[in-house]
Amino acid sequence: MDTARVAGVGLTHFGSHPERTSRDLFAEAGVAALEDAGVDRGDVEGVYYGNFMGELSEHQGHQGPLAAEAIGVDAPATRYESACASSGVALRQAVRDVRNGEADVLVVGGAERMNNLSTAESTEALAIAADDLYEVRAGVTFPGAYAMMATTYFERFGGSREDLAHVAVKNHENALENDHAQFQRAITVEDALESPPVADPLHLYDACPVTDGASAVVLVSGAYADEHDLDAEVAVTGTGQGGDRMALQDREDVATSPAATEAAEEAYADAGVTADDVDVAEVHDCFTIAEVLAVESLGFFETGEGVTAARDGATTADGDLPVNLSGGLKAKGHPVGATGASQVAELAKLLGGDHVNSERVPSARVGVAHNAGGTVASAVVHVLEVVE
Amino acid sequence: MDTARVAGVGLTHFGSHPERTSRDLFAEAGVAALEDAGVDRGDVEGVYYGNFMGELSEHQGHQGPLAAEAIGVDAPATRYESACASSGVALRQAVRDVRNGEADVLVVGGAERMNNLSTAESTEALAIAADDLYEVRAGVTFPGAYAMMATTYFERFGGSREDLAHVAVKNHENALENDHAQFQRAITVEDALESPPVADPLHLYDACPVTDGASAVVLVSGAYADEHDLDAEVAVTGTGQGGDRMALQDREDVATSPAATEAAEEAYADAGVTADDVDVAEVHDCFTIAEVLAVESLGFFETGEGVTAARDGATTADGDLPVNLSGGLKAKGHPVGATGASQVAELAKLLGGDHVNSERVPSARVGVAHNAGGTVASAVVHVLEVVE
Repeated sequence: MDTARVAGVGLTHFGSHPERTSRDLFAEAGVAALEDAGVDRGDVEGVYYGNFMGELSEHQGHQGPLAAEAIGVDAPATRYESACASSGVALRQAVRDVRNGEADVLVVGGAERMNNLSTAESTEALAIAADDLYEVRAGVTFPGAYAMMATTYFERFGGSREDLAHVAVKNHENALENDHAQFQRAITVEDALESPPVADPLHLYDACPVTDGASAVVLVSGAYADEHDLDAEVAVTGTGQGGDRMALQDREDVATSPAATEAAEEAYADAGVTADDVDVAEVHDCFTIAEVLAVESLGFFETGEGVTAARDGATTADGDLPVNLSGGLKAKGHPVGATGASQVAELAKLLGGDHVNSERVPSARVGVAHNAGGTVASAVVHVLEVVE
Repeated sequence: MDTARVAGVGLTHFGSHPERTSRDLFAEAGVAALEDAGVDRGDVEGVYYGNFMGELSEHQGHQGPLAAEAIGVDAPATRYESACASSGVALRQAVRDVRNGEADVLVVGGAERMNNLSTAESTEALAIAADDLYEVRAGVTFPGAYAMMATTYFERFGGSREDLAHVAVKNHENALENDHAQFQRAITVEDALESPPVADPLHLYDACPVTDGASAVVLVSGAYADEHDLDAEVAVTGTGQGGDRMALQDREDVATSPAATEAAEEAYADAGVTADDVDVAEVHDCFTIAEVLAVESLGFFETGEGVTAARDGATTADGDLPVNLSGGLKAKGHPVGATGASQVAELAKLLGGDHVNSERVPSARVGVAHNAGGTVASAVVHVLEVVE
């Protein structure tokens, strides 16, 4: 079996681009990734593209061919949709196909356009990641769903709004120098605590923003990288996917995320690493409580003990395990379909020494990306390692 | 490399089920497929699910987990969307993953609910398979796009509405005994010619209907089939995918379908067969002209010569190469996300001797399924063979 190397990455600025279509955004990210990789367009054998709400925000389905032509690639293209894990799922399939010899060069990425919708419209659009019949029609919004998870977590394991505020503060701090980030400004715990309530106990600063943006990763086989003498020292060495019941009321437990645990265990076994080997992680912090659930699911903290990780400094940039050095969804932004590939792009740069925050983790060799769909009814985990 | 065997298939009735959700339809098809396969649910390692317009018809994205729970399977699930080729693309990925040892048992399928929409709404929803910016906003509907392809074809190569009418007559005739079919009644060439115009030169009987329905296929590895002594004598021996520019005006030619040709050539090479080896085919006849383009793209007829194939009897049930013995999209129906897997389900039954029309092709050993997205901006081709 060959390895899947990251040869190049590309990201747009994450933020508000109401004048740009998702195909336009993806063109920027994809072309940047191809240039970064130094790969000939003619060698690209497929485009694996994540998008979540294009039908609602741009009246556009069938976006695979549009993604390919946006980056000037003449190859089959497929759109993957798994809510907020859309490009994570696309990446997983691309990793498998490169390792199994189905292709030597693939472009993986995603894009989302959201700010052309009103807040009410984007809230309604995001709700299609939940169960329309049994959650949405009963009045559940996405912030409401995560608020229920937070409440349950607090009741079961303790923790406070202040603990969660430290997650937001940390991720804003990490994004300060990241020019792709939607928010490049520091916030305080007080700012977070005093921000307006969204769905108790979650306030505005517990939530990621509504974001337009795109991401792309050029994956190549080890054989191709060697043959073309590419600078591709970071490989995706592990991939895992997990699933759970869609609606919260159908789960055995909403204070843990078994789908993410399942994905992580598979990815670690695939890579031959353990949670202890991980030096840096990008996790799906669509809400602050989601980062807490993620760091527990990934095995970095025992169940019930992740809530104080940011507060204790364990996951800050100078902690034992820096989490979301990119700024995370919270501060970097969350263009839904782009997020999974964006996490991997950030991690590859961090591990490769090309990230503004690389100097904060100079000895990092193993990174983990955790991308979740909905209320973690879907989860994809990837392990990245420096292999050269 | 292992082989990907079809262990079981399941289909709902294709037609109007306005009282049923797509998850409900998929439950029926998926459970039927698992029972047909005799496979333990606990052995299923993934659900690869195609759906096209759920965001618009059911306000539901993130359908992978819903599809898995609908059939009682606890495994990761992913939704693929490639317009009308959604479950064809899902199948391609599943075939690769089974052959490459990523999984031994996968459920592939799809579902679509359309009849809960008005005709205007479903026409608008179907249009998201075309380029919203440069086709749909200019007034192009899907029948309009295929009408332009038909007009161009006629101008370039000749052919007539009467030639196309024979395609519809043939496919209705093939569906007569297929209890899954939306239309189980014969029509005449005169009926087709006199049906109301939709988009010149296409009339109502040149178009497939609006259909609710679901399909499922249980794919297993050869090793698993042998170990569990399964009745799985039909294998998917070839897979291919092609892509083209999304909008018709960006294509070099709209009277041919190079994406389908590319997919077919890859699939044939993968299976080690040629077009001459094919005994029976299911092709994507969303419009009668689409069947003409398909049989040429697949190499069964020279370019410009496929238009008289049905009229000449070459593709009728007693012809040299029966096409769409299921009734095709035209008469069996076209629940968009379900169609690709449905074609493979029908083919597997035809080759395995389990289809109502199997007795019409008693010596068939090699079948081809051709599934197209949009105006063939995406195409997926699979080769099925009797391997035992």
